[in-house]
Amino acid sequence: MGLGLGDPPADYGPIAAVGLFVALMCVCIVVGHLLEENRWMNESTTALLIGLGTGTVILLASSGKHSHILVFSEDLFFIYLLPPIIFNAGFQVKKKQFFRNFMTITLFAVVGTLISFSIISLGALGLISRLNIGALELGDYLALGAIFSATDSVCTLQVLSQDETPFLYSLVFGEGVVNDATSVVLFNAIQNFDLGDLSTLKFFQFIGNFLYLFGASTLLGVATGLLSAYVIKKLYFGRHSTDREVAIMMLMAYLSYMLAELLDLSGILTVFFCGILMSHYTWHNVTESSRVTTKHAFATLSFISETFLFLYVGMDALDIEKWKIVSETYSPMKSIALSSVILALVLVARAAFVFPLSYLSNLTKKTPGEKISIRQQAIIWWSGLMRGAVSIALTYNKFAKSGHTQLPSNAIMITSTIIIVLFSTIVFGLLTKPLIRLLIPTRHLTREVSALSEPSSPKSSLEQVSADGPEADLENAVTIRRPPSLRMLLASPTRSVHHYWRKFDNAFMRPVFGGRGFVPFVPGSPTESSVPLLAPVSEN
Amino acid sequence: MGLGLGDPPADYGPIAAVGLFVALMCVCIVVGHLLEENRWMNESTTALLIGLGTGTVILLASSGKHSHILVFSEDLFFIYLLPPIIFNAGFQVKKKQFFRNFMTITLFAVVGTLISFSIISLGALGLISRLNIGALELGDYLALGAIFSATDSVCTLQVLSQDETPFLYSLVFGEGVVNDATSVVLFNAIQNFDLGDLSTLKFFQFIGNFLYLFGASTLLGVATGLLSAYVIKKLYFGRHSTDREVAIMMLMAYLSYMLAELLDLSGILTVFFCGILMSHYTWHNVTESSRVTTKHAFATLSFISETFLFLYVGMDALDIEKWKIVSETYSPMKSIALSSVILALVLVARAAFVFPLSYLSNLTKKTPGEKISIRQQAIIWWSGLMRGAVSIALTYNKFAKSGHTQLPSNAIMITSTIIIVLFSTIVFGLLTKPLIRLLIPTRHLTREVSALSEPSSPKSSLEQVSADGPEADLENAVTIRRPPSLRMLLASPTRSVHHYWRKFDNAFMRPVFGGRGFVPFVPGSPTESSVPLLAPVSEN
Repeated sequence: MGLGLGDPPADYGPIAAVGLFVALMCVCIVVGHLLEENRWMNESTTALLIGLGTGTVILLASSGKHSHILVFSEDLFFIYLLPPIIFNAGFQVKKKQFFRNFMTITLFAVVGTLISFSIISLGALGLISRLNIGALELGDYLALGAIFSATDSVCTLQVLSQDETPFLYSLVFGEGVVNDATSVVLFNAIQNFDLGDLSTLKFFQFIGNFLYLFGASTLLGVATGLLSAYVIKKLYFGRHSTDREVAIMMLMAYLSYMLAELLDLSGILTVFFCGILMSHYTWHNVTESSRVTTKHAFATLSFISETFLFLYVGMDALDIEKWKIVSETYSPMKSIALSSVILALVLVARAAFVFPLSYLSNLTKKTPGEKISIRQQAIIWWSGLMRGAVSIALTYNKFAKSGHTQLPSNAIMITSTIIIVLFSTIVFGLLTKPLIRLLIPTRHLTREVSALSEPSSPKSSLEQVSADGPEADLENAVTIRRPPSLRMLLASPTRSVHHYWRKFDNAFMRPVFGGRGFVPFVPGSPTESSVPLLAPVSEN
Repeated sequence: MGLGLGDPPADYGPIAAVGLFVALMCVCIVVGHLLEENRWMNESTTALLIGLGTGTVILLASSGKHSHILVFSEDLFFIYLLPPIIFNAGFQVKKKQFFRNFMTITLFAVVGTLISFSIISLGALGLISRLNIGALELGDYLALGAIFSATDSVCTLQVLSQDETPFLYSLVFGEGVVNDATSVVLFNAIQNFDLGDLSTLKFFQFIGNFLYLFGASTLLGVATGLLSAYVIKKLYFGRHSTDREVAIMMLMAYLSYMLAELLDLSGILTVFFCGILMSHYTWHNVTESSRVTTKHAFATLSFISETFLFLYVGMDALDIEKWKIVSETYSPMKSIALSSVILALVLVARAAFVFPLSYLSNLTKKTPGEKISIRQQAIIWWSGLMRGAVSIALTYNKFAKSGHTQLPSNAIMITSTIIIVLFSTIVFGLLTKPLIRLLIPTRHLTREVSALSEPSSPKSSLEQVSADGPEADLENAVTIRRPPSLRMLLASPTRSVHHYWRKFDNAFMRPVFGGRGFVPFVPGSPTESSVPLLAPVSEN
């Protein structure tokens, strides 16, 4: 540690690495800001390209010895980077939209991921075995299926607008989060599943276990969220210190993730539901300043984690060791062939469930506005083509554990994953903005006009933040448009479930756990007067 | 990594450790909140005791094998925990008070620390050599002087109120921060100083180097702070995203620390001045929401780091390895004797500079209100008696590097430091609240009454936050009480320096770098209208 006067240079390692990363993240933010109105780029592509560029510079500067300054560590990814991203996703999600489309989201994210997993696994079994790569077992093919079923919809979400296309956004967004959880759970189930003797009983055990994981993880997230709401409502930390409120919200959210991992559940699902519960109850129990702070602080932490992640993946891609092993054993064509085969399987597998499941989902809907149009189906299909950090982390887990990278067949799996991640993020990522502009032409026009006329008014208005939820909920606006109760019950059962849930929420949950309209009385706080409890909030 | 279904238990290490720490921090926050009105306890003592308790439980559960779940790492301390604490100190400091008392603070923190260092080093040389501990060199005694000159004034600051005793608070606070920097710079200077041939020239080189470090570190902090203000003012991130503003402020502050460490400067001083500059310029250039968010998010991060630190020190104290080595070589009395000798030296060394330097400082002041009363001197003396994490980190750096802990004389130095830190933090810490209540009797009365009548009004009012600086500056209130210009110039030269600085700041700095009253125009933002530019802000 260089604390002052001339310590030996060997000690600079961690500081130089962290310092360089921080500097690069600043560059990413500035460049991302300058390219905001650019037609092709988005922030994740920018970070990935800057990471690749820096990796190249380091590779040249170290005369081809190494390209990264931090080794890709699964722990870093799953313990520190993923939780803030997923938590923030739950915290800022438009709950109304999310729960209204809950069935469709689950259909895509669970059934769809299982279909995608089966097709990729079977396809890999049929096609990759012909490429003569080496000894791959059945477990390896199944793992490939799970690894390449984990989508990365960040690129698309950065382009779609939650306000202008709420329905599409909630589908893509919800599927993205639940899909990550499904893939990770699936991957772990395969890793721990004895593939020696397959029987019908075992298959049902597998399905049962899978459902248990989903249910238990969700419950744990809900329980932690409610506990945080109750504790903050009862103890009322804000009396003494705003910082304590913010700190306990952060720590309890993180704790829910850690608990889930310790209990062998899915931390991703847990922390996602914890975020939803916290934004529905806990957020309304804290002081005004804590509300503004948590809303933006959580978003910032998630933003920093995401930028870090893409930089990191970009830098790690050039890790020379693995490429050497691969190039010593295989021809360059084989690596490209393998990547192309997997990428083709990804394209086919996604098409194979998005269009049929959309058709199924449309059958249950009555009004045309609720159906998924063919353009929307195309966007949903496209949004799930990118592969990202989850795929990389799972590949490392499977093929790089305890020094097995020395095995050429393992090394080529890792390099192929990197090729697929880079190709899909950069090429598909660059095409996303123009494609969506083509499919939803009105959207961009509205956005650009509003960007010119009032650049930051929705962000700078504090009153707006406190009146709405952290996700700027459209709850009341939606309430008004709702048809009468009996017709509703016939038209769509999920809607009336939502109706009874609201009754239950108002009668029992909110009085106990707090929530909008049930915050403790704070003398001098503008909350009581400024929250228009039943007045409609305009959609923009 | 346990991601899902039954991974082997050996992989749970990092998750279990981080999870336990997060859970304990939640406990600390809740207990700290419940004990807020307690007469004896404060938050750091609470965290330390909870850490000690948990350490004992782990020690018993592992049948005496180990007491901590994370090994004390200097990197963790200096790279991750210290920067947010010191940055927040600079960000929230009442700049007016700090700069008004700048000369006195520098006198205490630089000259005082040097006096304390000399007395402790000489005393250790004279007394410890008689205890027959083993081969200690001159460098070791000098290092001890630097290690035990680093005070930890967190305990006192938690009890003092910035609003009720602004003068005393700024002295104790300012001394605390600059003292840390002085000790660390001193420690590193000794580590890298060839003690073989001492000459007058070398001594002056040493002094020159010391002054260079101070100047360069401060300049770097100022430069980074101004750069952040300029970048944010020019690019105006808030147009697109509040998160980017908050992220870039966080990252640039951290970058200043990393840069200072890489350039062999003092990161503590750099990040402290970066915090001051950011709160004076950058903070006024961001959107309303970013202002509230940064104010509370930085405070929360600092609060979490502090709690973590005390927990960590408490747990690490029971590290059984070192205690074993010590008990095998020395009698228990020797360990206690060594700690008592050092503690006595600390008490004497602090008294030896606080009272004479206060006398000197009082000679330059004309009005009685500006002089440091004898009661205030006693509190300043007391506030610097606690030793904390900086001492521990420096001791580890000196006596535990590259496995030297096996040497009994090194091990006893570490255990003695732990004894001193625990004793001073717990015993002196518990006495701090009653002592200050005794010396400033009116203070507590006011606080308790106001705590009962309006629990959280100053915190929940958002308008207040945006009108004041992040440190809730009393600038305008002070301006009104100021005597006319000519008398002022005669009475105290620093005040008129301040006067000319303000003129320069208004004419040149603020138009370029932004700042109160020079923020870019934000349509729809309440900033322009709600900031009472020249209206006095009441002191409470």
